[in-house]
Amino acid sequence: MLNALSKVSRAVSLKSPLPVLTGIKFELLDDGLILTGSDSDITIQTKITDDIEIIETGGVVLSSKYILEIIKKIDSDDVHISILDGTLTRIEGSSSKFDLNGTPINDYPRVNMNTEGIPLQLRAFLLKTVIEKTSFATSEKETRPVLTGVNFHAKDGKMVAIATDSYRLAQNVINLEDEQSFNIIVPKKSLTEISRIIEKDEEINIFVSDRKILFVIDDFYILSRLIDGTYPDTSRLISDAYDYSLSVNSSVLLSAIDRASLFSVDSTNIVTLNMSPNHVVLSSYSQEIGSVEEDLSASFYKGEELEISFSARYLSDAIKSVGSETVKILFTGTMRPFIIKDVERDDNIQVVLPVRSY
Amino acid sequence: MLNALSKVSRAVSLKSPLPVLTGIKFELLDDGLILTGSDSDITIQTKITDDIEIIETGGVVLSSKYILEIIKKIDSDDVHISILDGTLTRIEGSSSKFDLNGTPINDYPRVNMNTEGIPLQLRAFLLKTVIEKTSFATSEKETRPVLTGVNFHAKDGKMVAIATDSYRLAQNVINLEDEQSFNIIVPKKSLTEISRIIEKDEEINIFVSDRKILFVIDDFYILSRLIDGTYPDTSRLISDAYDYSLSVNSSVLLSAIDRASLFSVDSTNIVTLNMSPNHVVLSSYSQEIGSVEEDLSASFYKGEELEISFSARYLSDAIKSVGSETVKILFTGTMRPFIIKDVERDDNIQVVLPVRSY
Repeated sequence: MLNALSKVSRAVSLKSPLPVLTGIKFELLDDGLILTGSDSDITIQTKITDDIEIIETGGVVLSSKYILEIIKKIDSDDVHISILDGTLTRIEGSSSKFDLNGTPINDYPRVNMNTEGIPLQLRAFLLKTVIEKTSFATSEKETRPVLTGVNFHAKDGKMVAIATDSYRLAQNVINLEDEQSFNIIVPKKSLTEISRIIEKDEEINIFVSDRKILFVIDDFYILSRLIDGTYPDTSRLISDAYDYSLSVNSSVLLSAIDRASLFSVDSTNIVTLNMSPNHVVLSSYSQEIGSVEEDLSASFYKGEELEISFSARYLSDAIKSVGSETVKILFTGTMRPFIIKDVERDDNIQVVLPVRSY
Repeated sequence: MLNALSKVSRAVSLKSPLPVLTGIKFELLDDGLILTGSDSDITIQTKITDDIEIIETGGVVLSSKYILEIIKKIDSDDVHISILDGTLTRIEGSSSKFDLNGTPINDYPRVNMNTEGIPLQLRAFLLKTVIEKTSFATSEKETRPVLTGVNFHAKDGKMVAIATDSYRLAQNVINLEDEQSFNIIVPKKSLTEISRIIEKDEEINIFVSDRKILFVIDDFYILSRLIDGTYPDTSRLISDAYDYSLSVNSSVLLSAIDRASLFSVDSTNIVTLNMSPNHVVLSSYSQEIGSVEEDLSASFYKGEELEISFSARYLSDAIKSVGSETVKILFTGTMRPFIIKDVERDDNIQVVLPVRSY
């Protein structure tokens, strides 16, 4: 029950404008207890059928915050739950007794959790990886809603996942077993919750409809709305011709970025790379605090002299997403987007847009 | 260096009205490096004499925040520090180079760290215990400054430590080896820092003066101002005659309090004890959310029927401070202060004032 409740409650927003959605719906049927949590963008539902004794069927909506705390802290392994009077619900442990005010079940919005639409099967850990390697690059700003989600585009046996906030981009490609075809945008928050619910590498079932997507993971049904609109064409950001390339050990570069951004006073964290075949330096400068210089001579640079400035955080995010021991960074010019990828593989491609140096 | 810096920097307040005090003073002498941090209420100083190579003496004040981060993250075991030009200071690792703007050492206020005043020797862990068992009960409000500190009163070979916010009180008594006599109030923040610096149970030297107290712990000198004013007489709160007493297992009571305060909407956390010789119940009630009842029949109560309401947090704090397996709670009436203490020992006495029940 605690496991089910804590997962279902993840869909609940305590700041929901609809008060009944700050609760979890308890529906006791003849064959089990259905728990539902929702913030209307995402709905998580599960059914408890084992280790449960059903005395009388019925239902109530209970405050997500309080019922979760009660089940966490109650002083016994089994709990007894009964509706006393209308919606007042008693939760009993061995020497603890909680009477919690509930809300009538009819006030809870109806949600259609049917398995309908284009079916798709994926390994859970593969989906989790795709989510983790892209969703960080979505936009935090609501000005262009399509950029707050990840675009999944399935065609010709491949699925391309793309996220961009228009300053950087993350793209991950996987192979599909069948030839499904869809082009959807899933809100980042829904993907984060799905990634959290995945605990073991099982086969999961996905159903893609026009306006929603349903994930069936273990005993949990997770339904998310899709974001309306057309995702921008990002292919022009990823060119094939490069004049400069830098290969460098990922952890060495990550530590250097971390130190080089020590003196940055805001989140922009602008750092500068100065590269020539026998000299690679990452530096940053703050009028007020001072300057940092990191010598990256151990890296391998090919091309003419180049100076390029960019957000330190965007480059670290990209390196972490690539996740390889060595990364290859490909440049076309001082004010042109550059690519970060594995030395050999092309399934994960990261793009960062430079900024004008100071 | 990292250990010394991180301890010294604990005295530094980044919001200090005097900008130079947001830094750490580096004073390189012929025989070692003196590091000083201060927020003018508390000053922490140490001297590094081992594993140091001194090329030229001098000094500078460096931003506490940045120098600490640099030393934490630098890519080598040894660092080279040099003053380049006036106060611009270079910190070098193996491939990292930081140039940090400093402040002239003469801008840093002079602090007298002399070992003068009434001397006192205490075991470090005993001092740490006294601090932990009292300082939580000091007042957070600045309206009565004396209550924001802990009162230490030494007389006749005993030292009594008292803290109160006027709603509850914590008192701890220890024996002294000598017959020192003083009556001082030490700010809570200073005591918290001293408690944090204590890592091993060594003998520590304390020097009590009129307006300040100096602690010598290992290689660290910690100087704190004292709070001016007369500490209130709290002896009337601790009476000897009790009509009701409750003995109860501490962890059972702590869990019951924790659950009983689940429904409290603010920090007041008011709970009610209903006691009679064969029935002890802890309960709370919220019009909006619901009610909780905790059966404490396993406890031992002596006295007539009594109902008393109080802050759940104050009672938990008191039980934790007493720290025994079983606590004894002594009552004199429904609106009178009650005492929490060990079943047998009297060196730690906690007092909580009840509130009017709803």
